[in-house]
Amino acid sequence: MVTDLYSINRVSIIAGGAGFIGSNLCEFLLSEGRTVFVIDKRLKGEDQYWKSGTLNKRLHLIKGDLSNRAFAEAAFEKASSLGFLDEVWHLAANSDISAGVSDIDVDLRDTFLTTIEILRCMKSVGISKLYFASSSAIYGDLEGQPLYESIGPLLPISNYGAMKLASEAVISAATESYLERVCLFRFPNVVGVPATHGVILDFIRKLKLNSYSLEVLGNGTQRKAYLHVSDLIAAMLLVRSYSDTPKILPINLGPADEGVSVSWIAEEVVRQVAPRAQIRFGKENRGWVGDVPRFSFSTTKIQAMGWAPTLGSEKAVLRAIKEIASQEGF
Amino acid sequence: MVTDLYSINRVSIIAGGAGFIGSNLCEFLLSEGRTVFVIDKRLKGEDQYWKSGTLNKRLHLIKGDLSNRAFAEAAFEKASSLGFLDEVWHLAANSDISAGVSDIDVDLRDTFLTTIEILRCMKSVGISKLYFASSSAIYGDLEGQPLYESIGPLLPISNYGAMKLASEAVISAATESYLERVCLFRFPNVVGVPATHGVILDFIRKLKLNSYSLEVLGNGTQRKAYLHVSDLIAAMLLVRSYSDTPKILPINLGPADEGVSVSWIAEEVVRQVAPRAQIRFGKENRGWVGDVPRFSFSTTKIQAMGWAPTLGSEKAVLRAIKEIASQEGF
Repeated sequence: MVTDLYSINRVSIIAGGAGFIGSNLCEFLLSEGRTVFVIDKRLKGEDQYWKSGTLNKRLHLIKGDLSNRAFAEAAFEKASSLGFLDEVWHLAANSDISAGVSDIDVDLRDTFLTTIEILRCMKSVGISKLYFASSSAIYGDLEGQPLYESIGPLLPISNYGAMKLASEAVISAATESYLERVCLFRFPNVVGVPATHGVILDFIRKLKLNSYSLEVLGNGTQRKAYLHVSDLIAAMLLVRSYSDTPKILPINLGPADEGVSVSWIAEEVVRQVAPRAQIRFGKENRGWVGDVPRFSFSTTKIQAMGWAPTLGSEKAVLRAIKEIASQEGF
Repeated sequence: MVTDLYSINRVSIIAGGAGFIGSNLCEFLLSEGRTVFVIDKRLKGEDQYWKSGTLNKRLHLIKGDLSNRAFAEAAFEKASSLGFLDEVWHLAANSDISAGVSDIDVDLRDTFLTTIEILRCMKSVGISKLYFASSSAIYGDLEGQPLYESIGPLLPISNYGAMKLASEAVISAATESYLERVCLFRFPNVVGVPATHGVILDFIRKLKLNSYSLEVLGNGTQRKAYLHVSDLIAAMLLVRSYSDTPKILPINLGPADEGVSVSWIAEEVVRQVAPRAQIRFGKENRGWVGDVPRFSFSTTKIQAMGWAPTLGSEKAVLRAIKEIASQEGF
């Protein structure tokens, strides 16, 4: 008997699939012909994020908290009943870095305990591939040193970064024991829609309330690299398509440039949505505890794999300002 | 008014203070004139580990699980009522690496959640100095590369190593936010008494049951560096005595030599306690999942601080064999 491999119904789980990056990823996985099982604690009933996806029979949505063991087990069992469940994309996390600095339980539960329960479920259901949304925040503040994947010591300065590093660590141990393929995607700042947080959305919402004044956290000199979400998804899918990577691959994703400053972003947002606004800066060189003022994120490794972003930091931010302004009704 | 600084009653907490390293540390801190508050879930009523300490009025023992929030808070409140509580030594952890490989909850609770609760308590009580027992296991298997403190990527291969790295990560974030001084002591294999686990105790107990045969996990070629517990304590107290270290200092502790092989340890144990025993080796080059077969642990940094162990790996192991044999009634 000849088995037709193309007839296999492949299933992906996206933990945190209703969030900013997850909802973009979802569209791509559906377009590959996969069945997609989204698990998210912040899922909205009639999901606004999928233009075409909502009507797709291959899209399954389930709302719940993956740090809850019984819920996680039931969700994974359900997903595995839909076909050949061969991969998990783990994007579930707290995204409010400063909330996590004041209360460690937020990142513990939403970022780390979700990882623990996902690993337990992958082991018991028998799923071998894990793609994890890690972060440049795991590097902490290495004072301008280029952040290669092999640099250390890793001393994160926020609970967000700490729980991402903690997640990498337990995933690594699981790879020794039962996972077969793992990518630790270390995200830069990612921009685009549907925006749920971040500096651009923050500025635009402030200007919606008061179009004459924009107050910026920090003195505006913080400089960071930004990647557009479309480029991020393309990078992850490219890495996933290689079959000859190490069993566990930590890899930075980001543009090759030096990034843009917060003051430049403020000026561009003001120019596009509220040209009469005065920008007022704070005094500190960081916006909050846990904000790394300046870092140089090395993307040599992903570039060597043949990837380049279509948009650098400037263009990514400019496009995202347009998209988010539109999302917010400007 | 002149305050006599020497009249201040300084208090140390030792989390995990009834264990192997904790009980040795306890004696040293008492000898400094400090009040010592030991918190340990495995504390035995009439504690066998302190020869003189048990009768010391400055020694307080409390039994309980620091991963339990209510217990941890009550214990820290009590300790802070005893005097000026300025430091915590966090040695509480699961020490059975292979148990943690099969069930992630063991290391999650005993190694990581204890760290979370200790940090919460330090923040609320206002304790500024933390000395943490980390581990060479955070480095994973870097295939023979010298393990400097700044090497990466950090991909631990056991949940034990993963939860130690996770603990370092959240401690690092806390240092940015409210701790004032932190040492991340990365321990090698430590030997001595009171032995509770480890290869020497394992061999001696096997030989006690059967003095004609010793079965070794793995093929015996695993080579590791060993430090005697007395040297370990001396190293930690030396580093603590420096006031000009960075706010957070990850530092490897260990001998400068290449270590000894498991087969050599087996032969020495047999020679000392059961000379007629036949040694039988396994086939794998590691004893269990999570066992790193061979690594080169760099101690350049601690040596540069003026420290050298009084015993190298060979002598440390030989002394420990004598001590543990005596403990076990040989």
